[in-house]
Amino acid sequence: MDKTAHDPAAIKLTLDEVKSLALSILRQAGLSDAQAGPVAQTITDCEADGRASHGLQRLPGCVMTIKSPHFVASAEPQITSPAPAVVRADAGFGYSLLAFERALPILEQKAKSCGVAVLAINNCFHFSALWPEVERLSKRGLVSLAMTPSHAWVAPFGGTTPVLGTNPLAFGWPRVKADPFVFDFATSAMARSDIAMAKLAGKTLPDGCGVDAAGQPSNDPAAVLAGAMSTFGGHKGTALSTMIELLAGPLIGDMTSRASMDFDGGVQAAPCHGELIIALDPALLGGQDLDANSRRAEQLFAGFTDQGARLPSQQRYARRAQTRKDGITISAALHDRITALLP
Amino acid sequence: MDKTAHDPAAIKLTLDEVKSLALSILRQAGLSDAQAGPVAQTITDCEADGRASHGLQRLPGCVMTIKSPHFVASAEPQITSPAPAVVRADAGFGYSLLAFERALPILEQKAKSCGVAVLAINNCFHFSALWPEVERLSKRGLVSLAMTPSHAWVAPFGGTTPVLGTNPLAFGWPRVKADPFVFDFATSAMARSDIAMAKLAGKTLPDGCGVDAAGQPSNDPAAVLAGAMSTFGGHKGTALSTMIELLAGPLIGDMTSRASMDFDGGVQAAPCHGELIIALDPALLGGQDLDANSRRAEQLFAGFTDQGARLPSQQRYARRAQTRKDGITISAALHDRITALLP
Repeated sequence: MDKTAHDPAAIKLTLDEVKSLALSILRQAGLSDAQAGPVAQTITDCEADGRASHGLQRLPGCVMTIKSPHFVASAEPQITSPAPAVVRADAGFGYSLLAFERALPILEQKAKSCGVAVLAINNCFHFSALWPEVERLSKRGLVSLAMTPSHAWVAPFGGTTPVLGTNPLAFGWPRVKADPFVFDFATSAMARSDIAMAKLAGKTLPDGCGVDAAGQPSNDPAAVLAGAMSTFGGHKGTALSTMIELLAGPLIGDMTSRASMDFDGGVQAAPCHGELIIALDPALLGGQDLDANSRRAEQLFAGFTDQGARLPSQQRYARRAQTRKDGITISAALHDRITALLP
Repeated sequence: MDKTAHDPAAIKLTLDEVKSLALSILRQAGLSDAQAGPVAQTITDCEADGRASHGLQRLPGCVMTIKSPHFVASAEPQITSPAPAVVRADAGFGYSLLAFERALPILEQKAKSCGVAVLAINNCFHFSALWPEVERLSKRGLVSLAMTPSHAWVAPFGGTTPVLGTNPLAFGWPRVKADPFVFDFATSAMARSDIAMAKLAGKTLPDGCGVDAAGQPSNDPAAVLAGAMSTFGGHKGTALSTMIELLAGPLIGDMTSRASMDFDGGVQAAPCHGELIIALDPALLGGQDLDANSRRAEQLFAGFTDQGARLPSQQRYARRAQTRKDGITISAALHDRITALLP
């Protein structure tokens, strides 16, 4: 049960109210209607799925980003097709989400004609989780991977100086009779927002999350935030994070996490960089018997759930079913913090 | 220094001798010349790079596989183009390597015209490491990912029953003035061959490698081989392994690790399944300033090496430079085991 439900001052909101509130604040900050729509929708989707880290609490940061020196509040993405299986969306230093929205139909069309296609989003400010994007591609029948760099907060395995971003990887797989198989994880051992929340709550971190400024392993969130985070999974996690850094950065003509941090220049706006999405068409790749392919995937999933292992996203989907009926509840303190952004 | 160098009965071989020896044994077992060539070359490449796990010691297993019921010793891969950015190589129940060889020029051509292309290898017996393949693509100027399922030896995070394969992921990135950035890792916490070697050597395993047949965490290699291996990196490693299982299995109309194990029927031949390779063209994806992209990648790599963190594959490349001059040394016992396969 939600802790805030016991807070007499807690605020209940329908999902429509969440979206309206987000839209009002984003527009008030000067964001164009075209840019604001997909951002408000993603905030709402994250609240609906119980992912508060990318929900309403991001709005103060969004306002700060919108007003930051490099941000273009009425950016119109430029969509180009440099090759048959490539679509490029130059976000023009607005948010990534409108660029994704505008490029999505072209990515789908290219993947369904070529078998595989890539969307390269450039010059975008990024605050979004990646699972809403791969989930949308799953609903169009496409398998997909999405990835981005971020800011250079993470040291490679064997080192103590931050070079890599938290570099998330998301994956979506359409299922015929169930919500898509979707995961989305940071390649850092812990998400930076979770470390920040541990700091606020006065908690210590589990081993392996990072090092302090002197390069010594630390369980103190403040020390790790000032030092360097670690990748998950030792040298393998570092290899994966490096791959993401390269694919969603230099490969598509965009910044690394280090370059993005330099570009920010200490303003602490949302990271500005690129994003890479690969979409694969199961119909063109799957050979003769597409039903058999589906059955094999479902047998794999059953092999997890039959032994009590959880598939990723199951909690999100359960939460979504509930919030569609009941809406969400946020603390009065958060509600105050957000409404203070309105005139 | 190589331990066997102190063994007075150790055998020195040039790389040409390694290849000739492998070729003789593979042909003697009944493998066609066309199939044997790329297998012998890969064994030689692995020995050259100090990766004995995929070198000469695999030959007894190769002979067993070649003589196993489902293997087709003179299989000729069938190459088709189901879509502009997709090449399919049906290996016809021979080795994966000839199928890769035959499809490689078409994959390159499709990636360089479409921007991204996929090679789906089907119905192949697989013993090879994946790094030689992504390295070859790097040398043709392409960025690439390669992945395969294997046999269902690995339990998902939160479970104790094997469902997943060891599901390796390899990645290659071309560099102008250096050997390509290449990694290749199993998504199991430890490679199965390393666990088998620990068993032979009477060693215990580090924590987290797997569980015994009763589902209890174990450091005993024999118990883990009879129970279930674990993925690396907790739930994130399991998610990545599941992605590989889906992409290189059901997506391309081929078997999962579980289906492949059932297909083997206890013969213990090399796993038969599919393989997926994604090739990306930096020239078509990289936008206006390809030199700047290269420089950004090199700055990232320098960020590793400047702080003493190692880039993957550096040890392999150093070893290669040495074995090209000096050849390799194998134990007399291994040499005896291999030459016993000749008439």
